[in-house]
Amino acid sequence: QDKYAQGFGLGSVNPDLASERQTASFSVERLTTVLDGGAEHTRVRRAVGTYLQGLETTAVFDTTTQEFILNTPKISAMKWWPGDMGRSATHTVVFAQLYVHGKCYGVHPFIVQIRSLRDHSLCPGITAGDIGPKMNFEHIDNGYLMLQNVRIPRENMLNKFCEVQPDGTYVRRGSQKINYFTMTTLRVSLLSDEVILPLMKACTIAIRYSAVRRQSKLNPGEEEAKILDYQTQQEKLLPQLAAAYAFHFINNYLHKLFDRGYKEIQERNFSSLPELHASSSGFKAMLSQYCTAGVEICLRACGGHGYSLLSGLPSLYTKILASCIYEGENTILLLQTARFLIKCFAAASAGQPVPQSVTYLAAVKPGKCPAKNKLDFLNPDIYVEAYQHTAIRLLSSTAAKLQDLIQSGVKKHEAWNQCTVQLVQAAKAHCHYITVKNFVETVEKLENKAGIQKIMKHLCDLYALHGIFSNAGLFLHDGYISGAQMDMITASYLDLLGVIRKDAVPLVDAFDFTDKSLNSALGSYDGNVYQRLYEWAQKSPTNQQISPAYEKYLRPLLHNKLSKL
Amino acid sequence: QDKYAQGFGLGSVNPDLASERQTASFSVERLTTVLDGGAEHTRVRRAVGTYLQGLETTAVFDTTTQEFILNTPKISAMKWWPGDMGRSATHTVVFAQLYVHGKCYGVHPFIVQIRSLRDHSLCPGITAGDIGPKMNFEHIDNGYLMLQNVRIPRENMLNKFCEVQPDGTYVRRGSQKINYFTMTTLRVSLLSDEVILPLMKACTIAIRYSAVRRQSKLNPGEEEAKILDYQTQQEKLLPQLAAAYAFHFINNYLHKLFDRGYKEIQERNFSSLPELHASSSGFKAMLSQYCTAGVEICLRACGGHGYSLLSGLPSLYTKILASCIYEGENTILLLQTARFLIKCFAAASAGQPVPQSVTYLAAVKPGKCPAKNKLDFLNPDIYVEAYQHTAIRLLSSTAAKLQDLIQSGVKKHEAWNQCTVQLVQAAKAHCHYITVKNFVETVEKLENKAGIQKIMKHLCDLYALHGIFSNAGLFLHDGYISGAQMDMITASYLDLLGVIRKDAVPLVDAFDFTDKSLNSALGSYDGNVYQRLYEWAQKSPTNQQISPAYEKYLRPLLHNKLSKL
Repeated sequence: QDKYAQGFGLGSVNPDLASERQTASFSVERLTTVLDGGAEHTRVRRAVGTYLQGLETTAVFDTTTQEFILNTPKISAMKWWPGDMGRSATHTVVFAQLYVHGKCYGVHPFIVQIRSLRDHSLCPGITAGDIGPKMNFEHIDNGYLMLQNVRIPRENMLNKFCEVQPDGTYVRRGSQKINYFTMTTLRVSLLSDEVILPLMKACTIAIRYSAVRRQSKLNPGEEEAKILDYQTQQEKLLPQLAAAYAFHFINNYLHKLFDRGYKEIQERNFSSLPELHASSSGFKAMLSQYCTAGVEICLRACGGHGYSLLSGLPSLYTKILASCIYEGENTILLLQTARFLIKCFAAASAGQPVPQSVTYLAAVKPGKCPAKNKLDFLNPDIYVEAYQHTAIRLLSSTAAKLQDLIQSGVKKHEAWNQCTVQLVQAAKAHCHYITVKNFVETVEKLENKAGIQKIMKHLCDLYALHGIFSNAGLFLHDGYISGAQMDMITASYLDLLGVIRKDAVPLVDAFDFTDKSLNSALGSYDGNVYQRLYEWAQKSPTNQQISPAYEKYLRPLLHNKLSKL
Repeated sequence: QDKYAQGFGLGSVNPDLASERQTASFSVERLTTVLDGGAEHTRVRRAVGTYLQGLETTAVFDTTTQEFILNTPKISAMKWWPGDMGRSATHTVVFAQLYVHGKCYGVHPFIVQIRSLRDHSLCPGITAGDIGPKMNFEHIDNGYLMLQNVRIPRENMLNKFCEVQPDGTYVRRGSQKINYFTMTTLRVSLLSDEVILPLMKACTIAIRYSAVRRQSKLNPGEEEAKILDYQTQQEKLLPQLAAAYAFHFINNYLHKLFDRGYKEIQERNFSSLPELHASSSGFKAMLSQYCTAGVEICLRACGGHGYSLLSGLPSLYTKILASCIYEGENTILLLQTARFLIKCFAAASAGQPVPQSVTYLAAVKPGKCPAKNKLDFLNPDIYVEAYQHTAIRLLSSTAAKLQDLIQSGVKKHEAWNQCTVQLVQAAKAHCHYITVKNFVETVEKLENKAGIQKIMKHLCDLYALHGIFSNAGLFLHDGYISGAQMDMITASYLDLLGVIRKDAVPLVDAFDFTDKSLNSALGSYDGNVYQRLYEWAQKSPTNQQISPAYEKYLRPLLHNKLSKL
């Protein structure tokens, strides 16, 4: 049995992986520098409270006692999910509808003590507990909370931007929309750690494994081929890799946008709030959806081993999936973005000024894509223009449908509902366009790093062309791209897979994850996949003893039968 | 706190759900009959052994002892995954390369004892154990296995279709391809329980929940709307519902095909094997991929509650995901189908006879879709023709690319590899076409059940038009469908969502799942979602005691701080 421990001794790098690194066309160290050069990202903390305009919990101000009285009106209005609240937290921030003298002032945040500081028992009027098992996050006690006539002092309302004075006078400082800013900021701050990093990790695991795993012969007489040499495997993994880079760069873009916006708000200028809200909503939705799908693709691309927890991929998936839901459900978020875009489109069409990220909506629409051959589609001007054209077309045609419905007598809200499938499409197309454009601009700025710039240009091209190939209908619809041009795009796209495949391993090495953080038998730096899988499996508690089912069921069964023989 | 137990008393049906059932346009009981009328399905058992042409385990026949000697040559050739083998099984069926007198006869199955019948210890030469934790299937001890000079008697080779005689003479009875038949049959037999039922369950849970859950106002002044009344929610769930019905019917079709084929094989007629292999491969891949995505859509459509294990959806997802991998990885399966289609296309083009399911490949290709308005797209002839046209176009253009590459000097295997992304597309388009056509034919046969036929026709239309809407590029590419026609399709598709929405709850009721089998706080028949969620969460072990972390960490922390005050 010793011979199985030979072959790949742990510590030495699998020769298949080593050769991938030797033939790389660029310096991993230099690329790592580019990746680290982004904005600093804060660690995400889960917000207490959920995002709901129709929130039902009330906080009624009682002028006689100078207290707010909080109530959850019914079971379906319970707080559900806030992290650390199920068993641990002593205090929470509760969002509730503020009422003063019978008038509702909308949703405000209040500090509420829920557990005794002496013995951790629940405070009077508080019903709280753990919501039970989830798909992941076993380590967090997400909780439920109901409040019955819970009284808190007036000072417990968070009052940076508004206040209830002792006599009940309501004073607002700044915009009413500032309540959204917490969520808006949170949505951007979670992208890096909760959304993009998991995709980068999944790519690292799946690409390293695919350079080690061999299956079937590509050509008769040769040895079995690395699965990364199959076009279908490249088509699964390399677009995810390109997307991980694209999203890393759009994340930098969003952080710059927010740093600027935050400074303005500090100076009591709230004018950038709508753009920040629309951007954070759209990109949170687009990135979390894409990255979740990407992680799943990576998992499945590893076959059965991807499904083993030892691959590290299942837990990446069950965790990132939550990002599609928390801090705003993605469809609702995209419709927020769409509402902003529809307004800006109307303004731009009327020649009014609009935020910088949507000035393109006023651009003249060219009739046809001018590309003549497949190489033309490696020209960023060509594909950025195609994305821009499609984003404008989707938005303008949906705006027209909306207007037609309203003019034909359909109520405004009902008309909006009838356009939502297409509005979501338009919002996605906008975010996709901005992401491609930002990738192109990022690559242009790498001009003093030629080797890195070259491979980043390939990734940018791949990201852009994969997006057109995968959403062909949107580009073909009005003939902006012809069927013949789509064939050129397909050809260029498939060519790029072969080009990037050569550098695939170093491109994930550049993400610079430690083996410990990957926690994957398939994805470690040294590529000793099978040895590690076997060693880790042997350590499973299920292998430390004979199955208890043997003594209880199998032994009696087998021995009775034997005795009859 | 008692008031939270009121509202929805368990036992009575939520009024929102009850009204959904009252206004249904058809009889659930009659529909249930249609669903039960399918072929009888056997329970799936996981096969022991994996499907791999390049299998490395060897079984060498030793004429002197009349034994086979089995060996696993290296660690990467270990058996990994067979169910019940990690700790329980005493015997396995091992697939190995058969060698007699130094000649290889390919993969054959052998019965091998791996554990002692006396004390369950591993037999000499056997290394076996549990592969450790997986994404689901915690109840199954999937195992690993290595063999070192393990000797088994000659009789242990399964010899229905071939045999090694005492002197080493190898005798084959029937086709060499019969080895594939086990897997071929298995792939079809698993579809119902492992692939289609989970999607039906997920639809039931998500649609019932969406008829109970209310959020935001659709029109100002009204009460909050059921989320099922939002177009975007309909667009998520109703195509999954239509697909569940489509797949139920294609499953019946496949069982009929297999029953016929199996009878022929019993009579030693192996001519249907290629068609059976191609069909089982393609449909297993298409259905498992679609249903996995569908279950995920249902999970996400329930928001945060879908992510709770109490919804029943996470375990449906983590289980169905495995179906994309086991019994043949989906991409490899689709390429098997594509290989069959390419051969049939060549034969059909040359006027030679081809199996019945692919005779359409010889059909004359019409130039343009003749539809003039959105109602034309509710005509099955129109959309079946569009699917057929697209399937032929994808196959013929890929066949042409393949031929061009080979004629330009690219090696045959390399040329095939360069076409695989498009071959996979072509194989999917074929299966999609057959599924739509079969749905149409099933609906036609319901002529004596008018109410059922009407709603089934709507579902069939929805399935077909959703498929075109979601794959618009494939239909627009050569102008068979124009941009204007795609707008008509979109309009008809969105109209259908509103039509089917009315019957959505009864359409899932007809699947006739017991609450116990759904095991979902969101999806029970009575719709008492919030009461059940709250009751189940309270039962969580985490709520049966104060958190152990309190005594250990929180109490010392809080009390130290308090004493300093």
